[in-house]
Amino acid sequence: MGKGEQTRQLIVDRALTMAQRLGLEQITLGALAEELDLSKSGLFAHFKSKEQLQLEVVKEVVERFTRIVILPALTKERGSPRVQQLFQGYVEWMRAPTASTQSGCILIAMSYEYDDRPGPVRDALVKAQHDWIDSVARVAKSGVGAGEFRDDLDPKLFAFELDGILQSFHRALKLLQDDRAETMARKALSRLLEDSKRR
Amino acid sequence: MGKGEQTRQLIVDRALTMAQRLGLEQITLGALAEELDLSKSGLFAHFKSKEQLQLEVVKEVVERFTRIVILPALTKERGSPRVQQLFQGYVEWMRAPTASTQSGCILIAMSYEYDDRPGPVRDALVKAQHDWIDSVARVAKSGVGAGEFRDDLDPKLFAFELDGILQSFHRALKLLQDDRAETMARKALSRLLEDSKRR
Repeated sequence: MGKGEQTRQLIVDRALTMAQRLGLEQITLGALAEELDLSKSGLFAHFKSKEQLQLEVVKEVVERFTRIVILPALTKERGSPRVQQLFQGYVEWMRAPTASTQSGCILIAMSYEYDDRPGPVRDALVKAQHDWIDSVARVAKSGVGAGEFRDDLDPKLFAFELDGILQSFHRALKLLQDDRAETMARKALSRLLEDSKRR
Repeated sequence: MGKGEQTRQLIVDRALTMAQRLGLEQITLGALAEELDLSKSGLFAHFKSKEQLQLEVVKEVVERFTRIVILPALTKERGSPRVQQLFQGYVEWMRAPTASTQSGCILIAMSYEYDDRPGPVRDALVKAQHDWIDSVARVAKSGVGAGEFRDDLDPKLFAFELDGILQSFHRALKLLQDDRAETMARKALSRLLEDSKRR
């Protein structure tokens, strides 16, 4: 990584930390330049606008999510092992310092923040959610192909349900501080897996 | 309702609309007074502080949620009919003009907004979530008492799962604009109900 690329990454990392604390809309190029001891024009050399930086922050979060949650699952056998690893990856994701807020996943938090702010940042957040659901649906489908899940399994419905379990898990753990959050999530996941298998 | 009470209700309603648009933290007594053509001191006669008004707004949202989602369910027979009505009430809730944001439920949106703002408003929002989960768990438990659901049903787990379905539903419908959102939610609910019944 060249020096320019390093600085760029440093800016994105710091912007992400700031976004987690204050919200993605609250990051300012001025405050970032000050925190990083860069001139504002030095920072502008990397990002032409606040929006461009916000889009990079979303991209960075999605890349981390992919690295922690999606990719490890793809190294596992199709069917239950791959789904179990998705779940395990999500547990890791919730522990990652920049992944969570007290109320839940930072990607969901950002979606709420951009609720009534149409534009490229909101579009990127909605696309990230679509991509996640599609990834889960593909994992479900590959379990059908492998012969473990039943032929009439609806992959989109599987993704809908798994995502519901994970969101409920996140909220039970963080917002409600329920000691049984992980136990309940694992039981709900077992039920979903059992119902997905060939009889 | 006396005139004072009417004015008070008018202020809370308008504050709720403002909170839905801008966020609960963004409401200001000044802007409200102007919108309602009241003097600032007239408004202060009803609410001593912004925080007091915010707490009233949360209370108002919770009351509406209770009226639309919880109470109609309690008029139905215990077991599946009561759970089905909870679901139906939630569908109504999502259609209520002040209940939703584009990303999901306004109560969840507010939780995210107050994520890193500890204090009475956040406490009230967390309590609202706890109360909701407890209400669902009681509905599940009453279905056990009625003999329809199995004796070893875990009411908290049932609530965890139902809440996951509803959150996934809300997001699929609003954020992802998925035409199959309600169909998928109903299928997930059927599966939960089937698994909850006595064999």
